[in-house]
Amino acid sequence: MTLAPIFRDTTAEITPTRSTIVNDRLLRACRRLPVDRPPVWMMRQAGRYLPEYRAVRARSDFLGMVRTPDLAAEVTIQPVELMNVDAAIIFSDILIVPNAMGMPLTVEEGVGPRFPEPLRSATDLGRLREIEPEEDLAYTLDAIRLVRRELHGRVPVIGFAGAPWTLAAYMLEGGGSASFSVAKRAMHAEPAFLHALLDKLARAVGVFLCAQVRAGAQMIQLFDSWAGALSPADYRTFALPALARAAAIARTSGAPLVVFPHGAPWMLEEVAIATKADVLGLDWRVDPVEGRRIADRLGIAVQGNLDPATLLAPPAVIRSRTRRMLRELDGPGYIANLGHGITPEVPVANARVFIDTVREYETRYEEAV
Amino acid sequence: MTLAPIFRDTTAEITPTRSTIVNDRLLRACRRLPVDRPPVWMMRQAGRYLPEYRAVRARSDFLGMVRTPDLAAEVTIQPVELMNVDAAIIFSDILIVPNAMGMPLTVEEGVGPRFPEPLRSATDLGRLREIEPEEDLAYTLDAIRLVRRELHGRVPVIGFAGAPWTLAAYMLEGGGSASFSVAKRAMHAEPAFLHALLDKLARAVGVFLCAQVRAGAQMIQLFDSWAGALSPADYRTFALPALARAAAIARTSGAPLVVFPHGAPWMLEEVAIATKADVLGLDWRVDPVEGRRIADRLGIAVQGNLDPATLLAPPAVIRSRTRRMLRELDGPGYIANLGHGITPEVPVANARVFIDTVREYETRYEEAV
Repeated sequence: MTLAPIFRDTTAEITPTRSTIVNDRLLRACRRLPVDRPPVWMMRQAGRYLPEYRAVRARSDFLGMVRTPDLAAEVTIQPVELMNVDAAIIFSDILIVPNAMGMPLTVEEGVGPRFPEPLRSATDLGRLREIEPEEDLAYTLDAIRLVRRELHGRVPVIGFAGAPWTLAAYMLEGGGSASFSVAKRAMHAEPAFLHALLDKLARAVGVFLCAQVRAGAQMIQLFDSWAGALSPADYRTFALPALARAAAIARTSGAPLVVFPHGAPWMLEEVAIATKADVLGLDWRVDPVEGRRIADRLGIAVQGNLDPATLLAPPAVIRSRTRRMLRELDGPGYIANLGHGITPEVPVANARVFIDTVREYETRYEEAV
Repeated sequence: MTLAPIFRDTTAEITPTRSTIVNDRLLRACRRLPVDRPPVWMMRQAGRYLPEYRAVRARSDFLGMVRTPDLAAEVTIQPVELMNVDAAIIFSDILIVPNAMGMPLTVEEGVGPRFPEPLRSATDLGRLREIEPEEDLAYTLDAIRLVRRELHGRVPVIGFAGAPWTLAAYMLEGGGSASFSVAKRAMHAEPAFLHALLDKLARAVGVFLCAQVRAGAQMIQLFDSWAGALSPADYRTFALPALARAAAIARTSGAPLVVFPHGAPWMLEEVAIATKADVLGLDWRVDPVEGRRIADRLGIAVQGNLDPATLLAPPAVIRSRTRRMLRELDGPGYIANLGHGITPEVPVANARVFIDTVREYETRYEEAV
């Protein structure tokens, strides 16, 4: 089966010669176009499970890597070289946006990311400035340009950002949380403050995603990592309108948009409709049969969703679970992925079993060509 | 509206004279019988938010309280006296069952419960003995008898146990977990071991719930606290059959059974059908409108589901949120509750606003009488 490349290069300023994407499965799948097999990549594929990543990490702390385009580009490309994935996702962190807005950020080994000066009330909104991505987040944009140049169009590059609710929760809590009681207290006691914060974040995130596309990102993803912390009613009132606003700005870039409402399988359809997402990210708790149903009902693509803990299983189990996922989710508009980020303790060989099982799979809806 | 009490006293050996339940709203709601207003209680209502609880806790450690019938009974009754709830839930912990089966258990301040010698493989199953509740868990049964005696039928007493999957995960991980990678590794690498473990637990839990009913518990609840950690397929393969087995044993007691698949709103109907639960526990992520739909479709009762973080909000917000919950969930077979346990930092006055809002609510489906 020969497939015409659909990629149109809009980033001529960074690629000396016009290039076409050699492997355009990802971009075709985003648009529900036929592919020979599903494209595959892994969330957090540029990560600690790779010894080559750990070697770079030994030379720099986490934020240093994020802020040094050479290092960020290097680890971004590693999984393309080593794991044969069909896309590169830029190495970065969702918290760089609040950081660029003026919030000091620390990432300590074993503690995780923290905002030592969390937002406390509406007056703190004054501390947050509007970002100029080309200035405030130039390091990530430069890293994307570097990756595009070095990949020579071999696979597409994915840009990303955190969803407004997830970022707001981090900024209010100061870090991770089990109960989100600080963020929820703000929601109940000062709803106007939370709405204003979400609104600022929606704009920042949308603008940043557009800048990533201008720098060369060919698909973009919004991670709502803490979507599952809110009741459906609270999600609808607070998180979803801001997410939709961020998505509306991001969609002006023309790049296909993935929205990933992590931990909230019950919100999938509403999120897809409100954000007009091209691709809906499915976490591992979503029944793949239901995921396929949503994709076909809404005429969109879906991405996911093997439980990353499966990669700790014996290879035969990884293979059979991956095949089951493929049988249940494959169809027009399908991007194979994990249902959450790959974890540091996964043996590289096991991750390869997952990738290779997808690569050996022959898609079965060719009649759609 | 006058309602005939439906309680039949089957525990004459512990109550010197035959008593009828004065407040039988809970037991009527379990059977979808008419009530003047929804019954209300709070998960973890015997807990640290109450100064009177903390005073007892100051005299004993957590496990000491669980294992001393006088103390357990005292804190079980506190919220009935202080908060005007419609039920007492016996003060205990789901981990006493694995502990009684032979696993050492520690509960340290700030660390939480731990099994210092977690299960590692099938050979460890030999370490687990079948429990005899009247011997191994006599302290909780004695506490139930004490509570029944002291309450004089004022409100019903609730017994409970952990679901097999939740207990198995604790026993394999040794404690709480973010990724459940140890338990999931066992699931993938040694499925027969996990099935055997779940089977042992199903029996222990079922037998323990029956013993609690014989001791005087009038409603029983199975907590599957970590239902949300598994994909639907894994839940169906491992957790659900064992949960159904535990429920089948528990139902022989004749007491109404609540099953609470916490964190897995997508499994609600399957869980209700497989366990033949009388009442389905809804966590705060379940859309109340959907919860009511499930109750009516299956002809069962539902319990829940205000986000406990709401109790940190200003009283007016607690009131309006509680009223919304009541409007959306009330109907035949409704037990008002939080969607998860009340947290220590909740002001008592705020918890009272929640309880009182339910108590002031007039149910609107009286036509069903």
